[in-house]
Amino acid sequence: MTFDRLWESILDVGRDPAGGYRRFAWSTADLTLREWFTDEADRRGMTVEEDRNGNVWAWWMPRGWVGDPRGAFVTGSHLDSVPGGGAFDGPLGIVSAFAAIDLLVARGVGPRIPVAVVAFSDEEGGRFGVACVGSQLSTGAVTPERALNLRDADGTSLADALRKAGRDPEHVGVDPGLVDRVGVYVELHVEQGRALDLVDKPVAVASAIWPHGRWRFRFCGEGNHAGTTRLVDRRDPMLAFASTVRAARDRATLHQAVATFGKLTVTPNGANAIPSQLDAWLDARAADEDTLAAMVEAIMRDATTSDDRIAVTIDIESVSPAVVFPDGPRARIMRTLGELPVLPTQAGHDAGVLSEKVPTAMLFVRNPTGVSHSPDEYAEIADCRRGAEALADVMADWVSG
Amino acid sequence: MTFDRLWESILDVGRDPAGGYRRFAWSTADLTLREWFTDEADRRGMTVEEDRNGNVWAWWMPRGWVGDPRGAFVTGSHLDSVPGGGAFDGPLGIVSAFAAIDLLVARGVGPRIPVAVVAFSDEEGGRFGVACVGSQLSTGAVTPERALNLRDADGTSLADALRKAGRDPEHVGVDPGLVDRVGVYVELHVEQGRALDLVDKPVAVASAIWPHGRWRFRFCGEGNHAGTTRLVDRRDPMLAFASTVRAARDRATLHQAVATFGKLTVTPNGANAIPSQLDAWLDARAADEDTLAAMVEAIMRDATTSDDRIAVTIDIESVSPAVVFPDGPRARIMRTLGELPVLPTQAGHDAGVLSEKVPTAMLFVRNPTGVSHSPDEYAEIADCRRGAEALADVMADWVSG
Repeated sequence: MTFDRLWESILDVGRDPAGGYRRFAWSTADLTLREWFTDEADRRGMTVEEDRNGNVWAWWMPRGWVGDPRGAFVTGSHLDSVPGGGAFDGPLGIVSAFAAIDLLVARGVGPRIPVAVVAFSDEEGGRFGVACVGSQLSTGAVTPERALNLRDADGTSLADALRKAGRDPEHVGVDPGLVDRVGVYVELHVEQGRALDLVDKPVAVASAIWPHGRWRFRFCGEGNHAGTTRLVDRRDPMLAFASTVRAARDRATLHQAVATFGKLTVTPNGANAIPSQLDAWLDARAADEDTLAAMVEAIMRDATTSDDRIAVTIDIESVSPAVVFPDGPRARIMRTLGELPVLPTQAGHDAGVLSEKVPTAMLFVRNPTGVSHSPDEYAEIADCRRGAEALADVMADWVSG
Repeated sequence: MTFDRLWESILDVGRDPAGGYRRFAWSTADLTLREWFTDEADRRGMTVEEDRNGNVWAWWMPRGWVGDPRGAFVTGSHLDSVPGGGAFDGPLGIVSAFAAIDLLVARGVGPRIPVAVVAFSDEEGGRFGVACVGSQLSTGAVTPERALNLRDADGTSLADALRKAGRDPEHVGVDPGLVDRVGVYVELHVEQGRALDLVDKPVAVASAIWPHGRWRFRFCGEGNHAGTTRLVDRRDPMLAFASTVRAARDRATLHQAVATFGKLTVTPNGANAIPSQLDAWLDARAADEDTLAAMVEAIMRDATTSDDRIAVTIDIESVSPAVVFPDGPRARIMRTLGELPVLPTQAGHDAGVLSEKVPTAMLFVRNPTGVSHSPDEYAEIADCRRGAEALADVMADWVSG
């Protein structure tokens, strides 16, 4: 199957009525994509295994291999999306992985070491608020207790969502076989900035991931009538929030970092009611961990001191440390593909989570507008094909060597 | 039935899981309260009629009256609530109306003119965004086209909600018999400020309603990744909104008025996505129409000029002119009840809408905290009883005179 047909085969799954895609973890769309993944693996004679954390592995084993896979070349990404997400973020890595295998088969290359295509579960955190839950459970970066008690906007816990999808939440936890199983993890991903476009190259290799995290700011005031409550009597959390939004932008500018409030829940959210409470999620990222900590601390101070009639509580939802991808796999990729741009990214990835346990690398495919996490996210199909070919070359080097 | 038992009989209907009540127009809770209304009317031998706009009228007719009611003494309020609303705003007027009839019956007073208890439909606009839809349709202040095309948060139109509730949306429109039918409309309502508490009185009469309105501000930016998008490349509507919130408060202070952003819709509302769009509803009220217009114009200017990379469009959802309640009914009430505090209110009411067509008056019952549109809205039961007694005295004066 050509790259194009493989790519097109999932374009109708999980469209968001408001534009783009809404493929939340364990939703109907996610389950449909998991079926698609299994079908594609079956079509190639690959064996599919879902690990204890819902991550799905499709295995292409060397002829005559006996026993469990060890030291595999693993590639893939994730199938879930943010709300109103683009088509590329995640699925491009999985489609390219299957396409790379097809290219090797077409070239007559058979693997001497195990090969896997992996789809990590719940990478975006679009539904339960914490990103990379599948890979973080496997490495132990998040505990089962914490993960299973995460709740979506409807109050459904991850445990209940797993049960509803026919999975057993009691199984989740550290994957003790991960380190032996994975020789290297190479994740191909659409670029989420414009660096490749600016240097006119289709493919890059990753250097590092900025440290980043999410914090929930809860502003508590007093619900009241929007008409009859005098200004001096109000305890309106919207004002403290508004000050915090402006302050966060100023702090980010100062620290040459980024800070975003993109998600809000207003209670009761009535046009003629002063809100009683406002929850807002801060996404913050910086080039190093000290800068991130200093910036977030300053934003917290701004929030808690902006209005002494508003009680502000702040919870850490997740903090991901800086990731520096190891030199070895990157150097080997460059030997195979030739000189490539080497880029850091401000976006978190399962490859970052896995890098604590196994060798990892990432390939980026050009995004001419740099837009991501949006229906407008875009890559040229010709660049996507070149990405899949690059991944095939890297795979061939590793598995036939 | 005593006032207390009547009051308690609806306290379990339509509770909001987040606190208080969520009795949206044409929801299950609203339909349950409409059944309750009919049952209470039946219990008193009153005839129930639902008019073409879903407003329900229970008639207590003079013995031997022939033909349609004319020149009636009408009292009542509304049964719906804002999200997370209190128990009193609306239902207190209807419970007090039935209780007042019970008091007249107990006193042996029969009506010489028709008496009606009315429950106006969709007063709060909590579901479809526009307040007083039932009374505004009847007076012609809102057109059927506009009303029927209002949509709730799920995209359901008022027309569809009416159909689902077994009503025919083709019937809605001006009530041509309203002026003949209603001799006077007296609405009892919980006070929504602390004026009565400050002067230690249980009941007041209304002087006027501030002009007020709702405007939807739509801030359009560009959805993008919260990590990878450089600050200089962002078009983040949250920042323009935050500036507008602060500006609105400053304008309100300057104009000795009120301006509130209490309701928001963020798209896509993902923690790691810069929003593409943010809709925010401004509720603004002032002592006179010129002040209101000047303040809202200034806030609009602030919004549209706050960030030249954000497109801002503003729609008027409703504007209610100033209401000055007529001297005649108020003077008659004061002759019956003695000297009462005379208060303006910043809150809109069906009595305000009706005042364009028929004589109207309002009674307010003390609210010791002034809190309203909140689960904490409160009135002492003793004050509520005194309110019902005052309404009974006013009714007796009008209907037995």
